[in-house]
Amino acid sequence: MNYPQLVELDERDPLASKRQEFSLPHDTIYLDGNSLGALPYAVAARVQGVLNQQWGKDLIKSWNKHQWIDLPSQIGEQIAGLIGAAPGQVICCDSTSINLFKVLSSALSMQSHRKIVLSQNSNFPTDLYMVEGLVTFLGEQHVELQLVDEQQIEQALNEDIAVLMLTQVNFRSGKLLDMQKITRLAHAKGILVVWDLAHSAGALPIELDACEVDFAVGCGYKYLNGGPGAPAFLYVAQRHHAEVQQPLTGWMGHSNPFKFEAGYQPAKGVAQYLTGTPAILSMCALDAALAVFADVDMHQVRTKSIALSELFIELLERQPGLSELTLISPRDASCRGSQLAFTHPHAHAICQALIDRGVIADFRAPNVLRFGFTPLYLRYVDIGRTIEILDELVGGEIYRQAQYKLKQKVT
Amino acid sequence: MNYPQLVELDERDPLASKRQEFSLPHDTIYLDGNSLGALPYAVAARVQGVLNQQWGKDLIKSWNKHQWIDLPSQIGEQIAGLIGAAPGQVICCDSTSINLFKVLSSALSMQSHRKIVLSQNSNFPTDLYMVEGLVTFLGEQHVELQLVDEQQIEQALNEDIAVLMLTQVNFRSGKLLDMQKITRLAHAKGILVVWDLAHSAGALPIELDACEVDFAVGCGYKYLNGGPGAPAFLYVAQRHHAEVQQPLTGWMGHSNPFKFEAGYQPAKGVAQYLTGTPAILSMCALDAALAVFADVDMHQVRTKSIALSELFIELLERQPGLSELTLISPRDASCRGSQLAFTHPHAHAICQALIDRGVIADFRAPNVLRFGFTPLYLRYVDIGRTIEILDELVGGEIYRQAQYKLKQKVT
Repeated sequence: MNYPQLVELDERDPLASKRQEFSLPHDTIYLDGNSLGALPYAVAARVQGVLNQQWGKDLIKSWNKHQWIDLPSQIGEQIAGLIGAAPGQVICCDSTSINLFKVLSSALSMQSHRKIVLSQNSNFPTDLYMVEGLVTFLGEQHVELQLVDEQQIEQALNEDIAVLMLTQVNFRSGKLLDMQKITRLAHAKGILVVWDLAHSAGALPIELDACEVDFAVGCGYKYLNGGPGAPAFLYVAQRHHAEVQQPLTGWMGHSNPFKFEAGYQPAKGVAQYLTGTPAILSMCALDAALAVFADVDMHQVRTKSIALSELFIELLERQPGLSELTLISPRDASCRGSQLAFTHPHAHAICQALIDRGVIADFRAPNVLRFGFTPLYLRYVDIGRTIEILDELVGGEIYRQAQYKLKQKVT
Repeated sequence: MNYPQLVELDERDPLASKRQEFSLPHDTIYLDGNSLGALPYAVAARVQGVLNQQWGKDLIKSWNKHQWIDLPSQIGEQIAGLIGAAPGQVICCDSTSINLFKVLSSALSMQSHRKIVLSQNSNFPTDLYMVEGLVTFLGEQHVELQLVDEQQIEQALNEDIAVLMLTQVNFRSGKLLDMQKITRLAHAKGILVVWDLAHSAGALPIELDACEVDFAVGCGYKYLNGGPGAPAFLYVAQRHHAEVQQPLTGWMGHSNPFKFEAGYQPAKGVAQYLTGTPAILSMCALDAALAVFADVDMHQVRTKSIALSELFIELLERQPGLSELTLISPRDASCRGSQLAFTHPHAHAICQALIDRGVIADFRAPNVLRFGFTPLYLRYVDIGRTIEILDELVGGEIYRQAQYKLKQKVT
C-alpha cells in the first residue's frame, strides 16, 4: 500500500476530525495511548478554569456552585455509556488498584463458603498484588489466590472458586478475552466475576450489563485520556446493590457526609464505594477528556482500531528486514484489544531508536515491543510512516550496532 | 483597637508579603482555609506547564523526564519538613481516609494480642468510619472501636488498647491536644499512636519525631493549599519500617514496579505505602503549593495565628450585640489550633449573611460558626472588618428576620 492510498483511507475515516481535539507534538507518532492517552485541548482549558475561576474565585463555595461534589457520579455516568452500563452502577474514584480492593472485598464477603480468587498468571501485576494484600490481611483461611494460564481458565472454574478476576485485554499481548462466555461459565458454577477494563474501556465496545458482569474496575488515563494517574472507576451491577458492602468506608460513601453523624451509614447504590475527598483537579481533567467521546460511536472506534492494526501487520510483513519481529498478539483481530506486541532480540534498542525518531512505542522486559492504536488521534499515514522508520532502523545502523554488541557479549 | 492600629500590625507582620503569593478575590475575606486553602499563583502556572509542556509534549516520557514518578516521595519530604519528620518517613498518596486504613492496619497487625482502637467521640467522622469498616471487614473478634470523651482519653489508656487514634486539632472546636504527653502516656501502656494532622499540618509547628509518634496521616487541601481533594500524606516512624505491612499492596508500593514481577515484594521504607498510579495533576498542584512554605518559619505562622484569633476574640467581646456568640474553642490560645468556633441560635443564617457580604466562614450543624485563620494570607485588617460586618449583621436586619422566623416557628 502506497502513501496516496493511506491518505485516502484517512480522508474516508469517519473519526478523522477527532484528531483535531488533541494536542499532539507535530514531530511525534504516538503509539503509547495504551499507557497514557494524549492531551485533549478541552482538558487544558477546563483545568485552567477550575483553577482560576472556581478554586481561585469561588473557593469553598465551588463544591456546590460548580458541582464538584457530583463529579464522581457524573463522570461515572459518562463512563457507563462507554462500557454498556445502565445509569447508577458506575462511579469514578481512587485508583484502579484501590477500586479492585473494594470490589474484591465485596465479592468475597458475598461468598461466605468459598475463599479462592482465580486469576491468570499473566494478569497485570497490580491486580494480583492486591489479592496478595487481601490474603496477608485476612489470612489464608479466608482468601486464597489461584493462578492458571489463560488456556486453563475455563477448566479451572469450579464450585470452590469464590471470585474470578480477569483483565479483559492483556496488558502485554493484547489478547482479548470473551467476557460474555467466561462470565456465563463462571456464573454456572456460582462464581462472581470481576473484570478489569484497564486496556479496553474507551478502546472497544463493552457490554457489562448484557454480559451480566458482577463487578468491574478500570483506568482513566489510558484510552479515556484523563491524564497521568487520572482517577479510576468501578462498576457494581444493580442486582447486587442491596447486598454489597466494602471496607474502605470513608465519609464520601456515607449516606449523608455533611451531617457529620456518629456511625457509618452507607449511601445507597454504587455511591457507597466512595471513600475520601475526590481529587477535583484530576477529576475535572477526566471529565473534560470524556466529553471527546460524547459523539463517538464505539463500534466505529473498534472498526478503525482493527483497520490500523491490520494495516500495521500487513505493511510489516511486506518488509523482509522486519521478519525477526515476531507477533505475540493474536493474529485474529477479533481476539485482540487495540494493541500489537512483538518480540525481538533487540526490542529494547529498537524501542529507544524509535523514540529518538519520534515514534513512541513501548518496551516490556525482556524482549517485547508494544504498539498501541488509539483511533481517535491516530492516522493511517502514521502507521505507514512507522513501518518505514522501523524498517530503516532494524535494517540499519541501530540494528548493526546492537548485533555487534551482542557478538561482543557472546565472545 | 482602631483601623490604623490594625494597619500597623499588618505593616509589622513578618509574613505580610506571603499574601501576594495567593490569588484571593479582592472583595472576599476568606476565613475557611481550614476547609479549602486558597490558590497559590504558583499552582496555576505549574499545572498549566504540566498539562501543555509535560503531558501535551513529552507524553509518556514525562514519568522519567519530569520525574513524575518521584512526586509521592518528593512531596512527602517537603511535608516532612513542616511536621518535624526526618527524611524517609513521609509519603504523599491517596486520601486521608485511605491512608488511615493503611496505617491502622499496620498498627493493628503489630499488636497481635490487642484489638481495641481507642478514639474520641468528637473525632472527625471519616476517621471513625474507617475504623468501623475495619471492624466489619476483619470481624469483631479482631478489631473493636472504643470511643470516649476527650477528657477521658488519658484514663482510658490501658493494656487492652492496641491503637490510639486521635486528631491533633478538633475539626469543630479547634481544641489542640497535647501530642507529646498523650503519646508518652499511650506508649507507657504499650499502645501504638496514630495522629491525624488534617487541621494542624501547615497551621502550627508539629514535632512527630520528637514526640515519638508511631504513625500519622494528614490532608493536602487545608492549610497546605494543595487544591480541592489534593492528595493526602502519611508518616511511619523509621523504627517501625522493618516490621510494618499494609494491605493495599498495589504496584507502586512494589520494590520494582516496572519489572512487572509475579509476587508482591514491598518497597523498602515508607514507599511500600503507595498503592496505585499517583494522580499527577493533583500532585503537581500540591507540590507547587508547598513551595510557598519553603521560606516560612512555622513558629512565625503560629505566632500570627494566635495573634489573629486573639484579636478576633478581643474585638468581638467589645461589641455588646455579639454577646450571644458563645466561644466553644478553648479560651487559652495554647490549647487551640488555628480556628475559632462559636455557637449561636442563628448560626446558619449568620453564616449565609456573612457569605453574602464577602466573609467566608463556615457552618457546622446544628449551631456552630467556624472561623479559620490562615496566617499566610490573612491580615489583621481582615479581622477588624469581619467583626464590623458581624456586628452589623447580628445587630441588624438578618438577625431580626431570623428572630422573627424563630418566633413564628415557636408559636
